[in-house]
Parts: sequence; C-alpha cells; structure tokens
Amino acid sequence: MTATTRIVEVRRSVLKANDLIAAELRDRFERAGVCVVSLVSSPGSGKTAFLEKTLTLLRARGRRTSALVGDLATDNDAARLARSGAPVKQIVTGTVCHLDASMVRSALEGWDLNDLDFLFIENVGNLVCPASYDLGERIRVVLMSVTEGEDKPLKYPTIFNSADLAVITKADLAEAVEFDLEAATRSINTVRPGMDIRIVSAKTGQGMNDLMELWDRRR
Amino acid sequence: MTATTRIVEVRRSVLKANDLIAAELRDRFERAGVCVVSLVSSPGSGKTAFLEKTLTLLRARGRRTSALVGDLATDNDAARLARSGAPVKQIVTGTVCHLDASMVRSALEGWDLNDLDFLFIENVGNLVCPASYDLGERIRVVLMSVTEGEDKPLKYPTIFNSADLAVITKADLAEAVEFDLEAATRSINTVRPGMDIRIVSAKTGQGMNDLMELWDRRR
Repeated sequence: MTATTRIVEVRRSVLKANDLIAAELRDRFERAGVCVVSLVSSPGSGKTAFLEKTLTLLRARGRRTSALVGDLATDNDAARLARSGAPVKQIVTGTVCHLDASMVRSALEGWDLNDLDFLFIENVGNLVCPASYDLGERIRVVLMSVTEGEDKPLKYPTIFNSADLAVITKADLAEAVEFDLEAATRSINTVRPGMDIRIVSAKTGQGMNDLMELWDRRR
Repeated sequence: MTATTRIVEVRRSVLKANDLIAAELRDRFERAGVCVVSLVSSPGSGKTAFLEKTLTLLRARGRRTSALVGDLATDNDAARLARSGAPVKQIVTGTVCHLDASMVRSALEGWDLNDLDFLFIENVGNLVCPASYDLGERIRVVLMSVTEGEDKPLKYPTIFNSADLAVITKADLAEAVEFDLEAATRSINTVRPGMDIRIVSAKTGQGMNDLMELWDRRR
C-alpha cells in the first residue's frame, strides 16, 4: 500500500466518522426545532461582522439565537459577537484547518437546544477544507467579499458547490474595488447553477433585512 | 491504535517525505543560483496582482524571472501572470488545499533553472495548510490585505510564524476600510517579533519599488 493510498483511506474513515456524528447532530437539531446555519469563507471576508449584525437583527425581532465560532487561535471573534447579547462560544482548533462535527458536539455541552430558534456556526476561515465536513447544519452559507475577485467560485468550486446560499459581503466597498456583480454571479452559477445569491453590507446594513425574511422562511 | 493516532502518523510520514523533496529542491535552486520566493495568503488577498506587478518590474530591471502558480481549479492566474511576459506554469491541485514539494518538482520539468534569477511560487489561497509544507524556497512571504482585519496574524499564527516577510496589500483601500497599520504591525510582531513588514499597492505601485531592492539584496 502506497503512502497516498493510506492517506486516502484514513481520510475516508475520518470523514465517515464525521458523517455519523453530523447525522446525530442534525437529528438533535431537528427535534429541538433549532435552525442551524453554518458560515464558510476565506479569512477576512467578513464572516464575523456579518454574523454580529445578523445576531443583533434576529434578537431585535425576538428570535432566540446563539453562535459557535471557530478559529485556530484567540477568542477575539467570540468576544466581538458577544456584543450582540447572544450566547456565544469559541471553538479553538489549534492547528486544525476546519471545524468538524465532534467539535460542534463538544461545544454544545451544557446548552439546551430547546431554548433556541437559531444556531449559527462560523467555521475557520478557509475556502478548501471545511467543504468536506458536514456539521449537521440545515443551511450552509458561503461568503465572499467584493474585494476578493469575481472568479473565486471558479477557483474554489467544491465549497461553493457544497453551500446552499452565497452571500457577497462588503457591498459598501464595491465601487472602490470596481466589483463586477454580473461576473461574480456568472462564476457562482457556473459551479452551482440557480444558487440563491445575496449582496450585503454589514456596515451600512444593505441587504441584511431581506436576509431576515429568508432565515424566518427556512426556520 | 486509534484513528487519530493513525492520522498523525500518516501525516508525519507525508511531511517527512515532503521535507526530503524540499531539501533536494533547495539544493538544486542554490546550485543554479535562482532565488526562490513563495507567496502564501488567504484567497483574494491579492497574491496574483502583487505577483504580476513584481514580475513586470523585475523583468524591466533585466532580472530573469518566472512563476509557478497553484490553484484548486482553473488556469486563470497563469493566463493573467503571462501578461507580464514571464514564463508561467499553473499547478492545478484538484481538491488538495496546498502545494507540496513534489508538485513543484513536477512543474519544473523541462525548465532550465540556470536561466533564472528568480522563481516565484504562488500557493493555493489558504492561511492554514500551506504552513506545514516546505517547498524548498529561500524566502516565504505571507500577504494580508488591508480589508482582512488587523488581527489575522493572531488568528493564523502558524503561517505568519513560518514566513520571512509580511506584505500588507491593497494599501489603496486602507482609508476606505479604516485600516489600522499600527494594530496590524502589533499583531504581526506578537506572533513573529521583529518581522520585516511592507505595505504595498499593486494598483498604484506604492511600495513596490522598495521591494525590488529587497529581492536584489536577497538574491
């Protein structure tokens, strides 16, 4: 057996173990009636700003929301998200480049899921590895900012393909970076025809209220 | 043996195999007198724009330069970089989230390294996994754009720690995003005290000429 064969086999068994835990989580989430949304993107594409605004708006509408947030190091994001008033827990992954279902399961210990309408899970900033790990979520959102280049979906097709919704962030910078929404939409549609695409700015609030309706509809 | 132990062992042997090839490459690079620079960053932080400008400026100064560029899919970047006139080859990694030394070795087949002063290697956009893979380069540059948030180095310490030079890109957007250079410098220095930090804009050319002197000094 070559080294490559061995890696593929170990990877397969890891993913299979992950899928079992993810299925168990999905079952728990459904029974508790909590809508679980995961966020994946590059580092720095504005996941945390988007999530902070989302938590604040949902809570203002009386929705019971909380969040788990993954990072290799620091609890900066949890501290930032806690400003929304929502219960937030940081998952520190060390050198691991993605969240997996067992990390989510551990982080949820002590939380009563029946108390929640929404649970958001912010993955480690990485457009590659998180694609392979089911976290038991109902909706996976892939974010890309207007500053990243319109062909990102073509270069990282797997993660766009594994997501249910694409959110283009930092719309307030679109003009400064000459962002081409049509080209970005075309890229996304090439890897995932018919995908729901939204353009938002957490800073100005643009597009954020429309998303509230989407969350409520999917709840 | 648990699944985790097996993974760690397989990973260790992969990294060891990679180190052997990287050492062989480093030896070849040194003998041929070519200065090899690798670029790592998030997706969309401006590696390709930076590299295109760098190749153009170096070639204008009579330096013989070429580039290898890694992506999961598409040869968009190679096509873009070829506009500089430099010989460029795309490495398509499929689902692999980083370049490794054997991919670099294969891509170099047919190239005479003695014809080169500089070889740039643009890694897959990923702030985590490329940190562990030595490519035989002399200088590893980590890039972060002003739009990504000043605490990126604290959140992804390993890759900043493995690099020799930090380049902050998209300086032309600094004002629009209220970028705090002092905070970013502090973050970088926390994970890598004394690191050389440059701020550039490939769009306006800011800081790019100063880097030419750095490349020539390290050649």
